[in-house]
Amino acid sequence: MEQERKLCGLITDFGTGDYFTGVLKGVIKTINPSMEVVDITNEIPSYSLSAASFALEQSYPFFPAGTIFLVVVDPGVGTRRRILLAESGGRYFVAPDNGVLTPVLQAEDCLVHAVEKREFFLIGGHSTFEARDKMAPVAAYLGTGVESHQMGPQINDPLLLDHYTPSLETEGKSITARIAYIDKFGNLMTNLAEDWLFSQLEASGMTRFKVIIKTEEIREFFTAYARAGKDSEPFMLIGSHGNLEIALDRASAAERLNAVPGTPLEIVFY
Amino acid sequence: MEQERKLCGLITDFGTGDYFTGVLKGVIKTINPSMEVVDITNEIPSYSLSAASFALEQSYPFFPAGTIFLVVVDPGVGTRRRILLAESGGRYFVAPDNGVLTPVLQAEDCLVHAVEKREFFLIGGHSTFEARDKMAPVAAYLGTGVESHQMGPQINDPLLLDHYTPSLETEGKSITARIAYIDKFGNLMTNLAEDWLFSQLEASGMTRFKVIIKTEEIREFFTAYARAGKDSEPFMLIGSHGNLEIALDRASAAERLNAVPGTPLEIVFY
Amino acid sequence: MEQERKLCGLITDFGTGDYFTGVLKGVIKTINPSMEVVDITNEIPSYSLSAASFALEQSYPFFPAGTIFLVVVDPGVGTRRRILLAESGGRYFVAPDNGVLTPVLQAEDCLVHAVEKREFFLIGGHSTFEARDKMAPVAAYLGTGVESHQMGPQINDPLLLDHYTPSLETEGKSITARIAYIDKFGNLMTNLAEDWLFSQLEASGMTRFKVIIKTEEIREFFTAYARAGKDSEPFMLIGSHGNLEIALDRASAAERLNAVPGTPLEIVFY
Repeated sequence: MEQERKLCGLITDFGTGDYFTGVLKGVIKTINPSMEVVDITNEIPSYSLSAASFALEQSYPFFPAGTIFLVVVDPGVGTRRRILLAESGGRYFVAPDNGVLTPVLQAEDCLVHAVEKREFFLIGGHSTFEARDKMAPVAAYLGTGVESHQMGPQINDPLLLDHYTPSLETEGKSITARIAYIDKFGNLMTNLAEDWLFSQLEASGMTRFKVIIKTEEIREFFTAYARAGKDSEPFMLIGSHGNLEIALDRASAAERLNAVPGTPLEIVFY
Repeated sequence: MEQERKLCGLITDFGTGDYFTGVLKGVIKTINPSMEVVDITNEIPSYSLSAASFALEQSYPFFPAGTIFLVVVDPGVGTRRRILLAESGGRYFVAPDNGVLTPVLQAEDCLVHAVEKREFFLIGGHSTFEARDKMAPVAAYLGTGVESHQMGPQINDPLLLDHYTPSLETEGKSITARIAYIDKFGNLMTNLAEDWLFSQLEASGMTRFKVIIKTEEIREFFTAYARAGKDSEPFMLIGSHGNLEIALDRASAAERLNAVPGTPLEIVFY
Repeated sequence: MEQERKLCGLITDFGTGDYFTGVLKGVIKTINPSMEVVDITNEIPSYSLSAASFALEQSYPFFPAGTIFLVVVDPGVGTRRRILLAESGGRYFVAPDNGVLTPVLQAEDCLVHAVEKREFFLIGGHSTFEARDKMAPVAAYLGTGVESHQMGPQINDPLLLDHYTPSLETEGKSITARIAYIDKFGNLMTNLAEDWLFSQLEASGMTRFKVIIKTEEIREFFTAYARAGKDSEPFMLIGSHGNLEIALDRASAAERLNAVPGTPLEIVFY
């Protein structure tokens, strides 16, 4: 039996200060009164495809099959980039074709369509607010049971973000990675998944690793924030997201290390 | 058939940091468990009737008939100003009588009542939190099917904001307008509707116009933010709201021009 | 008849900038699709048990019986503190055992359990995100009809916050109290309930009182913010919460007095 599609999860860089996400909800409720819209976050840093794709990667597996995700970080709004509708594991993802869906598109069995059919838009032609005029209506119509293939042609060349995953260097003795996301506590989330990192460590024949970020070396590893103790130095942790994280207990590692999303870091096995 | 009233749209200056909007939702759910409350925005700048009325004007047409809007920006809370309930096009608007409903009240066929009946309030007398004690309960009872005329007398003298609309100057050769709203990207939204602006241009016998704001003249006009290119000068655009907007590509026009809501601007035809 | 449990009210210090509260909603919707999650506030200052417990105290009475509150301010996440489930007046409260439920635990007839049963968690063992892995699932299962006693043993030693209530000094002639909460307008909410304060005044044989906070004395008392007039001095008010509040009309008393949550104050009867 087909999973009901009654839930829409929203990830945008619109902020909460304006009425923009409110308008999206109005559009969705007008087309599909039984759809419930849940804000995942609307405070992605402006235009940050990296932060939006990380937020999506970390949240979508916790939503039920049938959920429709509307992911709008869209510096190219109003230009001729496509609108994508991806389907994976019973979940649906509506977003501009700019790489923001990279974590989903890398999943197996991802079916992608370019949404083009005028009848599922409020406005057919040019718009400076395509989230309202095109993407929100598409999410709402999906919820009423319209299928992906009715909305436009299948495609196989969606844009992917560069450097989304870390890379091995110096014959497997080190890894180049990056800060993917910084949370409000200033914890630095890397793009290094725990399992992959430890399997590379094992393959290297070494037993330990350190992080080099900016001019700082970090070697301490804790299992909980409170374990480190107040006024401690930055330490490593496997965060709730399953990735390597750099943190401080009750203080901001981002401020201490002057790091931003995209800051490179090096893992050295020893 | 009467439209169902199950949706309440919230516009306030309460912020999201406190528990105030949470309490409103609790009050509404206690009276009317089947009502769904949608935050349009709760981050209107404190006491800004201009920003709240613009947010309302831009959002309400996108909500379905039957929606009840609760608009609370209320510097006079606890004094003897009235509480209004306006009805227009099947939508309902509950707000203090301070001009915040101006865009709705200027619409045709707007029926307005002053809400007075004790039975629809949590607290009958004095309150410093009338959104909780009076306006939220009124919205909830409206949703249960109570009609406007049961809540108090019809009135025809609601307060309207001054200078809500722009005015023609110098025998139709220029227009005095103002910045109505600034979004989180720093885009400046004016109170100049596209259609009216271009019809005045035509009537003037001229073919072009420029904006004078502070000491700056703006003549460039683009159709999308990304068209301007990075590091560009401020330019004009017709925003998604249908009004003239002054913007920069991926930068804040508000910061560049040092503009705030209410900053005057002049349109000169030439 | 048993009250339906379909509403979950959320109080956290996760902020709205990250995807964390979105993930909680996904987890809840996966387990219990008919549960509705309402954000009371997610912007409690980081780790502030005082602000979270005040926000809870002020909001829970306005929610219907059957509501499940999820209160997550949790500096000890990942350590061995217990997870509590308290029941009072038909409402349910899920939170870490760190004192954040003090206002509820002080209520009569509060039944408290320590949640321990693996089957109601996503992850049984160690987690750095227990709100997602343990507390949100517990709230969702409660909504499906699971009872408190099925989730773990009853306990009678939950942690309580120190100095939650004010104390009488100098033979009833003065009171030591504190700022419990500061709202976004900069209004200072004290832990002094109106009824208790005035009964102590009466018992003292005096007729007036003043507030001493930092080096400032405050004697003015108004019934509404707007009564004071702009550019006024700080004044007292009984806030919508029923407690003594120190405020300014359209300005921040917190900035003027350089006060933070926890700042002590003295009430002197005279």
